[in-house]
Amino acid sequence: MAVVDLSKQIALGIDIGGTNTKYGLVNHRGQILAKGSMKTVTESPETFVHALYETLSLVVGMYSQDHVLEGIGIGAPNANYYTGTIENAANLPWKGIIPFGQMISEKFGVACKMTNDANAAAYGEMLFGAARGMKDFIMITLGTGVGSGIVSGGKLIYGHDGFAGELGHTIIKPGGRKHWNTGSEGTLEAYASATGITITAKKMRAEFPDSMLNKYAEEDINAKTVHECAVKGDATAIEVFRYTGQKLGEAFANFVMFSSPEAILLFGGVIKAGDFIMKPAKMHMERNLFPTFRNKVKLVFSELDEADAAILGASALVW
Amino acid sequence: MAVVDLSKQIALGIDIGGTNTKYGLVNHRGQILAKGSMKTVTESPETFVHALYETLSLVVGMYSQDHVLEGIGIGAPNANYYTGTIENAANLPWKGIIPFGQMISEKFGVACKMTNDANAAAYGEMLFGAARGMKDFIMITLGTGVGSGIVSGGKLIYGHDGFAGELGHTIIKPGGRKHWNTGSEGTLEAYASATGITITAKKMRAEFPDSMLNKYAEEDINAKTVHECAVKGDATAIEVFRYTGQKLGEAFANFVMFSSPEAILLFGGVIKAGDFIMKPAKMHMERNLFPTFRNKVKLVFSELDEADAAILGASALVW
Repeated sequence: MAVVDLSKQIALGIDIGGTNTKYGLVNHRGQILAKGSMKTVTESPETFVHALYETLSLVVGMYSQDHVLEGIGIGAPNANYYTGTIENAANLPWKGIIPFGQMISEKFGVACKMTNDANAAAYGEMLFGAARGMKDFIMITLGTGVGSGIVSGGKLIYGHDGFAGELGHTIIKPGGRKHWNTGSEGTLEAYASATGITITAKKMRAEFPDSMLNKYAEEDINAKTVHECAVKGDATAIEVFRYTGQKLGEAFANFVMFSSPEAILLFGGVIKAGDFIMKPAKMHMERNLFPTFRNKVKLVFSELDEADAAILGASALVW
Repeated sequence: MAVVDLSKQIALGIDIGGTNTKYGLVNHRGQILAKGSMKTVTESPETFVHALYETLSLVVGMYSQDHVLEGIGIGAPNANYYTGTIENAANLPWKGIIPFGQMISEKFGVACKMTNDANAAAYGEMLFGAARGMKDFIMITLGTGVGSGIVSGGKLIYGHDGFAGELGHTIIKPGGRKHWNTGSEGTLEAYASATGITITAKKMRAEFPDSMLNKYAEEDINAKTVHECAVKGDATAIEVFRYTGQKLGEAFANFVMFSSPEAILLFGGVIKAGDFIMKPAKMHMERNLFPTFRNKVKLVFSELDEADAAILGASALVW
């Protein structure tokens, strides 16, 4: 049997988001040889698979002389590790159960493994980022939606059907704000996602006419503009983040009492708000914890570039 | 090396509760050779260890001619699997960190392993009861308190510090009922434990003077008398259980979205209320689940005698 030259093997890591899809060619050591981004084609899964092939076969082609593509790993919302399907994704337009992994595998002619996007990011952080050496942590991604990946005893928790770790959809305020897609009331995602922050900001600026937030057009209110106003000292903008942080902290307390992690890793656009959200989050987490768990759990920001964590984690599914 | 005669090895399984402590001598096949119960001596850990030794050395002595005691396994509230300590137990009178496993081991002269009481019960159900063959399930014990044990991928989740699975202390109603011991507001235990049901019943009977519950003295109101009234058709008693079931169901939905179990196993005195609690629990669990999880998760009653599950699970820690 010939010795396998690992340095020639590469994997394609893909991170599918509601708006953009990022990809990278990654070697065994977690080095990203090439990476890029494209719009997520939302028309149909078939047209998206076709668009991915058009773009990515060119990227892979550029490395095909010296390297062998061993497989494709994908992180996507509501993707199932066991079956390679995307099921009823709240932040993707395709409804029902899509055999996405199989479609990719057939198109590209290599094996494809899938997992949910936050699991991929958690895996990337565990192998190459802020969670190196940790065996118990929870990854929370705060972007358009709220995703999560749970690592316990060094392994991702997949659960009976492959869908474990949908913490964005846990109810943190029974009878609370209705989710724009799922219809559930009072979920974490309805408050702590970028979308949730926008809703909170629009409500609060209506209550406080003096707020700087009222200088913006309705469509320009988002987590970024709220951050700009908070930095300038606007009390309403600061309150938007404090409220968001409180909801996050209350949710974190429940997560800690479930799996007792060493740290909660945070990741995604929303964490740019930094202490405006994280200080109240920490305070309300501690306040709601059973004493045994207090002052033990770190809140840590991702160490990897946002896209890299998911690309690296997704690519590592191949090995 | 001599062949080990497994049939001669026995383990002592102990289940420590806030009021009573149960024990059994168990062989490798999970057969309970002898079992019994005693009051939990609450004066101090030392006096309790002494009382356990007085009683249990006699029991073990009766089997010492044909059997060898390999070790002792204990399930206790807030026990730590990693360290063998009991820490800040909400339903035991000893505060702080008690090196209980070490104290037992020194007194009896054999090794002692500990885990929390609900973990022990979960382990017992997995090896010998309703969860045989399941790799992902959550055990919820509904007694004086609410305990939990979480099995994922065939293993108990212990977490970073050994305390994972304190689901009774998760907040299900922010700002809700204050817990009599911990001071936390709106925890599952404050509503769904026998103690919580008693509080709900006392409140509701005050609101409805016609309720049969008003025929009882204040100190006789408990989960058992509420059940008696519910069976007789008392609307207030039925509402006490419906409300309890709703809170349970809302909590179950969050648990499912965390670890995606095949089943939630229920166990403890409160489940005697049967459909009065379980029908609303099931309804509110389904209603609060993200669609991916709906109509998949079974609610199952323990198949083992209440004490046996914990004794069997605790004893199995020895092997």
